[in-house]
Amino acid sequence: MKILRLALAQINPTVGDIEGNVLKICDFISKAKKQNAGIVVFPELAVTGYPPEDLLLKPQFISDNLDALKRVQRETKGITAVIGFVDRKTGVKSRQCDIYNAAAILRNGKLIGVYYKNHLPNYGVFDEYRYFKAGTESPVYAIGDVTVGVNICEDIWYPEGPAKSQAVAGAEIILNINASPYHLGKLSLREEMLSRRASDNNIAVAYLNTVGGQDELVFDGGSLIIDRAGEIIVRGRQFEEEIIIADVRIDGPSRPGKRYLAPAASSLGEEVYKALVLGTRDYVNKNDFSKVVIGLSGGVDSSLVAAIAVDAISKENVKGVFMPSPFTSKESREDSSALAKNLGIRIIDVPINEIFESYRKNLKREFKGIHEDITEENLQARIRGNILMSFSNKFGWLVLTTGNKSEMSVGYATLYGDMAGGFAVIKDVPKTLVYELCKWKNSREGRAVIPERVLWKEPSAELKPDQKDTDTLPPYPVLDPILKAYIEDDKSFEDILSSGCEKECVQKVIKMVDKSEYKRRQSPPGIKITPRAFGKDRRFPITNKYRSY
Amino acid sequence: MKILRLALAQINPTVGDIEGNVLKICDFISKAKKQNAGIVVFPELAVTGYPPEDLLLKPQFISDNLDALKRVQRETKGITAVIGFVDRKTGVKSRQCDIYNAAAILRNGKLIGVYYKNHLPNYGVFDEYRYFKAGTESPVYAIGDVTVGVNICEDIWYPEGPAKSQAVAGAEIILNINASPYHLGKLSLREEMLSRRASDNNIAVAYLNTVGGQDELVFDGGSLIIDRAGEIIVRGRQFEEEIIIADVRIDGPSRPGKRYLAPAASSLGEEVYKALVLGTRDYVNKNDFSKVVIGLSGGVDSSLVAAIAVDAISKENVKGVFMPSPFTSKESREDSSALAKNLGIRIIDVPINEIFESYRKNLKREFKGIHEDITEENLQARIRGNILMSFSNKFGWLVLTTGNKSEMSVGYATLYGDMAGGFAVIKDVPKTLVYELCKWKNSREGRAVIPERVLWKEPSAELKPDQKDTDTLPPYPVLDPILKAYIEDDKSFEDILSSGCEKECVQKVIKMVDKSEYKRRQSPPGIKITPRAFGKDRRFPITNKYRSY
Repeated sequence: MKILRLALAQINPTVGDIEGNVLKICDFISKAKKQNAGIVVFPELAVTGYPPEDLLLKPQFISDNLDALKRVQRETKGITAVIGFVDRKTGVKSRQCDIYNAAAILRNGKLIGVYYKNHLPNYGVFDEYRYFKAGTESPVYAIGDVTVGVNICEDIWYPEGPAKSQAVAGAEIILNINASPYHLGKLSLREEMLSRRASDNNIAVAYLNTVGGQDELVFDGGSLIIDRAGEIIVRGRQFEEEIIIADVRIDGPSRPGKRYLAPAASSLGEEVYKALVLGTRDYVNKNDFSKVVIGLSGGVDSSLVAAIAVDAISKENVKGVFMPSPFTSKESREDSSALAKNLGIRIIDVPINEIFESYRKNLKREFKGIHEDITEENLQARIRGNILMSFSNKFGWLVLTTGNKSEMSVGYATLYGDMAGGFAVIKDVPKTLVYELCKWKNSREGRAVIPERVLWKEPSAELKPDQKDTDTLPPYPVLDPILKAYIEDDKSFEDILSSGCEKECVQKVIKMVDKSEYKRRQSPPGIKITPRAFGKDRRFPITNKYRSY
Repeated sequence: MKILRLALAQINPTVGDIEGNVLKICDFISKAKKQNAGIVVFPELAVTGYPPEDLLLKPQFISDNLDALKRVQRETKGITAVIGFVDRKTGVKSRQCDIYNAAAILRNGKLIGVYYKNHLPNYGVFDEYRYFKAGTESPVYAIGDVTVGVNICEDIWYPEGPAKSQAVAGAEIILNINASPYHLGKLSLREEMLSRRASDNNIAVAYLNTVGGQDELVFDGGSLIIDRAGEIIVRGRQFEEEIIIADVRIDGPSRPGKRYLAPAASSLGEEVYKALVLGTRDYVNKNDFSKVVIGLSGGVDSSLVAAIAVDAISKENVKGVFMPSPFTSKESREDSSALAKNLGIRIIDVPINEIFESYRKNLKREFKGIHEDITEENLQARIRGNILMSFSNKFGWLVLTTGNKSEMSVGYATLYGDMAGGFAVIKDVPKTLVYELCKWKNSREGRAVIPERVLWKEPSAELKPDQKDTDTLPPYPVLDPILKAYIEDDKSFEDILSSGCEKECVQKVIKMVDKSEYKRRQSPPGIKITPRAFGKDRRFPITNKYRSY
């Protein structure tokens, strides 16, 4: 019976931190050696972090990454390591260099092979044709008595791709290294596809994903080993750094019972919540912040963001600011205080009324005879934005914004007001899912950390008397499916109507989405959790006269 | 002697405005017919406008553009028209549709051919692999007694590309349709390349470019016809819509003297100034604004932006706001007033001191015992941003921001403060070029529209007593070349040092650039005028620990 002891190094590298990434890689190589692993596998572009974006256009950056790989190479005495890096080669036709999204196969201190990614994704958040040339070969390598095929991320999604050629060429196991961004439900998509790939080609597949947050993206780990029968024998943790050691039977199906399956999320709520915690923690830490500040309104969005922040970087590092106006209700004050108390965070009280009055006074001459309108509502939001930014400037706290995807979609948010901040934690979370996440959090804690009333009172921006979100928007359970159909699924107006929505309502929603592009363009980055987020995932012109309704 | 009467329809379409673009195309077809042209040529993606970005992912959008092309087709009785549009074809391997960046050859009411762009740009501001499949054929067409090769934009930049194949296949003239974004000096780059392409292949080349502003891009027109000897016989205007009619000799070099050469810009200053005027005008008009508002500080940046705005949309539509603080100098008040008077625009006075004091008062408790610092400077800038946005909200005026590229590079700007606004006119103009543009404007007017003192007084943000830009930054003539080397040319730290810059200064500048990515990500769009602008042209991670110094 042929057994390969495989180590999956599900690490969390940082983009651009070549030194730090190399240290981490060497540390995990030494862990794998201690466990007598035959092969240790690292993620796609582990040396540079993923995605390095236009850093890849700097020749010095490529050189630094190549030097770093040489240092790693020296650490592979007595083991084989597969590591993602950027390779460079002078082009055949051009004098300039081509670069490749590559995997180095390092064995016993020597570089025994380099694989170039064949299939470069250039959709959604991906821009790989911007940088890389595609590889055209899919070799196999003899590692001891095992024949191995290495390929990278997107490659494995093609049934007729490198994995098949490698299986045909005699590979006994496929090592597929990834930097695969999370969106809800992606884990099961991956597992189905990989299981099919393994059984179709009668070959074991090890799928190693990176983990960690990088700007808009969260890489969720959840690495897998699947035997040649298509059975999952190893599943790594989601959202955590981990080294997974497994003995993989190469010449037959695994023995029943020899499995390591980290517990998967019990619900969508848990999965998304954990993604948001990791994305927030990594954005804060990797950008060298230690503390964050959040405007607490007593509403559900800011309550959720505060709970996530506390789970991400601990309560001492989270500051709340309550900024009441005359339109702020007693309930809002009570609920934000209760939330802060439940979370154990400090809440600072800065009323905005006096500042608001000083603006009104100084603008009175120019605005004479004109009714109050959205201008005065936005002013209040912008005063709050300025106050939060003042705390940020004075104490170095990162401002977390609290807008959700439903609001970002229809522009129900004030530019430079509640949109002011460095990181938009729930920017890609529809309002209906915001409630679900709060409920999951409360049930997990076994108490109403987020006060019950926050979950059932009617949402309001409280920028004028008796204001309700439904004055401007359809109820969220009506709004969210329209938004998903239009934004995530590119459904036409007719398609959306045919799913039973009211015509005027759909027209109004689409118009609001189209008209808000300029706001989204100036919004802070936030964590992608749906198949299509705002940001690099959805690239819309601001100047755009297309009307689909 | 074989002569082709060619009409180059250098039009200004609007992205998404399929109806409007079709009307314009039909209007230009009828103009060409009146002039007895044999062929009329329209730009790349003339039907949809360029670049439509993710509108291309909407199946309905593609259908609408195909329907529109059919309507155009009916208007081609008695003429041949070459028109850029998006074609769709069901893929061979996939069930889903592939789309192509295409040119329709319409003749006498019939579609006689479709060309698919072979070379898809996917660098800089371009993302064409995100959407399009590349064509692989380069046919030629017999139009009357002339054999014609049609290709699209990028195609002509490849010496061994479609133009050569078409010449070999018997084409007598190449019709190359474009949506080629402007950057300074690009016109002469194009002319050199096209002249070489024509003479190398012994073939006439007609180069038709679109014109107009689209978000960050300005398409500069400047269409060309080059005879088979490589001589330019027609050059269209830059930055203006125009139909150019020319009799092109097909079977030999042109007769000397038969030329139409629109006057080229006399200086870099003129060229860039005109690009900024067109970009501003089109952003305002295509987004259905009619008036703009600008914070006038008495400094050179806001003065230039106001002058450009007046040239773009006329003085009645430009409002200035002067927002003095106790740190505002007498000179600033005088200079902003003089500028407004010279331009004939209204200037509104809104002092910020009282508002500033009300913030300080309400933040006093939390900031007790801490020295005033950047926090209070930013507050002033943010109060001004709020005031401008209040005018925008109340009256529907678009806020133009006034920051230049040098500031945007090093982050010498306040997020939500002077960066607040809808369009950043001179975002890609280095400070040293700002001065040049002002001088060009004054010399063209024959008087100091921008007051002389504005051009020689020392730049200051006036956010604290006796502040100068040079307190924080190297002098602009030192700073700008470092920024160009680092940002536009991807030079390494060593390379920049070797050009004679001081080590500490370069380190400081690079550090400032790296640390400001988060600000740039939230900045409004502005007009690209350099080979690498901020925005879609330069895609940098915010979370980025790479240090090149």
